[in-house]
Amino acid sequence: MALKDLNAVERNEAGIATVLGILKQRFGERFQTGRAIREQHAHTTTYIPVQAPDGVAFAETAEEVQEIVRACAEHRVPVIAFGAGTSLEGAVNAPGGGISIDMSRMNRVIAVNPQDLDCTVEPGITRHELNDYLRDTGLFFPIDPGANASLGGMAATRASGTNAVRYGTMRDNVLSLTAVLADGRTITTGKRAKKSSAGYDLTRLMVGSEGTLGVITSLTLKLAGIPQAISGGVCPFPTVDQACEAVIATIQMGIPVARIELVNALQMRAMIAYSKLDYPESPCLFLEFHGSDAGVAEQAESFGEIAAEFGGGPFIWTSVAEERNKLWKARHDAYWASLGLRPGSRGLSTDVCVPISRLAECIVETEADIAELGLIAPIVGHVGDGNFHTLVLMDPADPRDIELAEEFVARLNARALRMDGTCTGEHGIGQGKIGFIEEEIGTNGVDVMRSIKAALDPDNILNPGKIWPARGG
Amino acid sequence: MALKDLNAVERNEAGIATVLGILKQRFGERFQTGRAIREQHAHTTTYIPVQAPDGVAFAETAEEVQEIVRACAEHRVPVIAFGAGTSLEGAVNAPGGGISIDMSRMNRVIAVNPQDLDCTVEPGITRHELNDYLRDTGLFFPIDPGANASLGGMAATRASGTNAVRYGTMRDNVLSLTAVLADGRTITTGKRAKKSSAGYDLTRLMVGSEGTLGVITSLTLKLAGIPQAISGGVCPFPTVDQACEAVIATIQMGIPVARIELVNALQMRAMIAYSKLDYPESPCLFLEFHGSDAGVAEQAESFGEIAAEFGGGPFIWTSVAEERNKLWKARHDAYWASLGLRPGSRGLSTDVCVPISRLAECIVETEADIAELGLIAPIVGHVGDGNFHTLVLMDPADPRDIELAEEFVARLNARALRMDGTCTGEHGIGQGKIGFIEEEIGTNGVDVMRSIKAALDPDNILNPGKIWPARGG
Repeated sequence: MALKDLNAVERNEAGIATVLGILKQRFGERFQTGRAIREQHAHTTTYIPVQAPDGVAFAETAEEVQEIVRACAEHRVPVIAFGAGTSLEGAVNAPGGGISIDMSRMNRVIAVNPQDLDCTVEPGITRHELNDYLRDTGLFFPIDPGANASLGGMAATRASGTNAVRYGTMRDNVLSLTAVLADGRTITTGKRAKKSSAGYDLTRLMVGSEGTLGVITSLTLKLAGIPQAISGGVCPFPTVDQACEAVIATIQMGIPVARIELVNALQMRAMIAYSKLDYPESPCLFLEFHGSDAGVAEQAESFGEIAAEFGGGPFIWTSVAEERNKLWKARHDAYWASLGLRPGSRGLSTDVCVPISRLAECIVETEADIAELGLIAPIVGHVGDGNFHTLVLMDPADPRDIELAEEFVARLNARALRMDGTCTGEHGIGQGKIGFIEEEIGTNGVDVMRSIKAALDPDNILNPGKIWPARGG
Repeated sequence: MALKDLNAVERNEAGIATVLGILKQRFGERFQTGRAIREQHAHTTTYIPVQAPDGVAFAETAEEVQEIVRACAEHRVPVIAFGAGTSLEGAVNAPGGGISIDMSRMNRVIAVNPQDLDCTVEPGITRHELNDYLRDTGLFFPIDPGANASLGGMAATRASGTNAVRYGTMRDNVLSLTAVLADGRTITTGKRAKKSSAGYDLTRLMVGSEGTLGVITSLTLKLAGIPQAISGGVCPFPTVDQACEAVIATIQMGIPVARIELVNALQMRAMIAYSKLDYPESPCLFLEFHGSDAGVAEQAESFGEIAAEFGGGPFIWTSVAEERNKLWKARHDAYWASLGLRPGSRGLSTDVCVPISRLAECIVETEADIAELGLIAPIVGHVGDGNFHTLVLMDPADPRDIELAEEFVARLNARALRMDGTCTGEHGIGQGKIGFIEEEIGTNGVDVMRSIKAALDPDNILNPGKIWPARGG
């Protein structure tokens, strides 16, 4: 199934018109219907076409979210929660129109409990805002998807990123949350206990549900202590294969790497140009270690030995913050650096994740496929988890480009599934991967998702047209 | 609400009679209806009354489980999956009768993937069987609830235990699973990728659902490397309060303890008598550290310093396996040791879990309550997670004993909720805690659970009468 086969959602014109009137009256200037604002609140990060909502409400409290959802529920109008707009699979598009709830004003820290290593926040806070707030406590929120995403959005897509190999994903780091359901009722999924066996795991049900089961209005998050020492560096390898073998050995040895990122040769070329790095244009691993002074030195040295065994090196590492920050800035800017490989292009990011025993094989086959299809598509990856991204650079106005990219993505996702992996390690399904979920989870599994959705949102108002194909679609 | 208010489930006599005939014909000697076997397959571990199923089927394959569920679905007869029978809240009782599926013959290891640190097993395998099987691989499955439970049962109750503080709970260690749904269809909840954002988290929905949404037929589990070195020991404290303060400091310092268990003075007395230990009858922490030789020594020494700061010690630790094993055998035998405090009694185990900042206060208040009510109720706890158990010793034939115990439990659970904790850290709700879930999750949250259950099991055949009260109940 091709990426362009997005799920159509029928527009309820009468309902939308009514709700626009209600919300304008209720929220005044905090409810906007201008085209520019509406389009900013649709999907804007990849070539997936923009599908704007009909209005944008800037909510300031959970009660306001509840009011908006109730109005939409009464008139069967779609509701799409909007965090920072950094999702990559069309998650915030409004295929049937409706109301976007902009959460950016709900960005307060409600509580920090340093003894319990947790905090409670509103969903619109971004991870930079949260970590700035926490700085004086000696704690930080570790999940880092690269973009300065909102915590609500990160929870909704079950995001992770560069240091999930050590700190886990949003699945592991949300202790509980509150959400407004499709009928306007509110649920709180749990208490602040670190673990619980009290019934169905509603927290995990909401995390990753992409706004289709409820609108998150607060999150209680696990925090980590800022490590006493951090070391990091870059290690070149002759081939991607050898780099992957070094990753497997590192994980198997139990070295508690905080980050272990693969950058392939083409991506290195882009980053060297963009971020003025002084490294060879060969596959590299970017690493970071967290621990005591002695611990991070020991970890770095152990990794260096492993790398040498697999033909890599020299592994140059440092504990100096400025040097490390430059490296990770370059890694985080990989997306922008890549676009420079084909000026004027847009990127389509893939997101497969496979068991690490299959990682080298998966990347090598993927590189061969890129060459065969004549694409420009650098690779970066959170390889400690077996997750990597190819950024396919394309001209979204050229149908041939789109066709080639879709062919590539279909092959890549099929390859990942064949290797017992997933088409999405961290970006979510949204619209872009709707064509792959049934192959991955099976029709029975997807039917279970549909049943849960129908039970909790019978009128399909919460972020409709996402995750699975319409029946018969 | 009192513990004795179990959820009644109406018996479907005609359906049961039909299914008994079908299964007898199909499974012959592998389908048993004798009273002794049926009662062994009901709840037998606490004072909660036995409610036996009408027949016990010894399934050998997933297809057989599917056949049994289909027969029961057609005739609307309850189906209760049975692992090792070690659950503590009446989870395997059959309040409306029906068929128990004994999983003990489905105990095969299907695959071990050492490079990926995972394995796939059938649900009836016990954790001892699994770890015996894995011994030569250098890997182990870390979750240790004390009892030699089955992995399927551990998943169904979202179990954890002594080393969850380091390795997480079943929530964190099940990568995916297959299950037979109420209508006999099978789902596989995911692939072997370490993380995924592919739709609703069906794995986590099934983990902790206590057999009410599906019968688990296989599990893919994360494994850990057997640590190079293990050290451990016991540290006495003058008061429980000081012991708890030392725990908080240890967690905040980021010392990666593998186990940190509190044993209160009364429990120590029981264990000293039962396991012939040479320790004072004062509150003690039992600890274990996993890592390199240098690492475990460093961790033990750091903990010793923290303990001394809070008035504890001496902390005597060892890396000698025999000595450590004796300690942990004593800790695991705490339940049996406790029963010796009141010969002929049965135990009722509580399971609250609170944020660790409230742990000392919670335990101190609980000990005062025990004294006030005149109970014999020793305390052990997985205090790194804020989870502790009191074992209330009672004569189940004495209504006054039951009344007192229920009063105590109600106060304890209310205390935990007031402290933002849960009534169950790891045992599940089953029948025993049905009266507390609405207070904990709220009626809206419990309604969401009910809606999901109704969507997936409209005839309520999978382990009925568990987790939440019947409406109006």
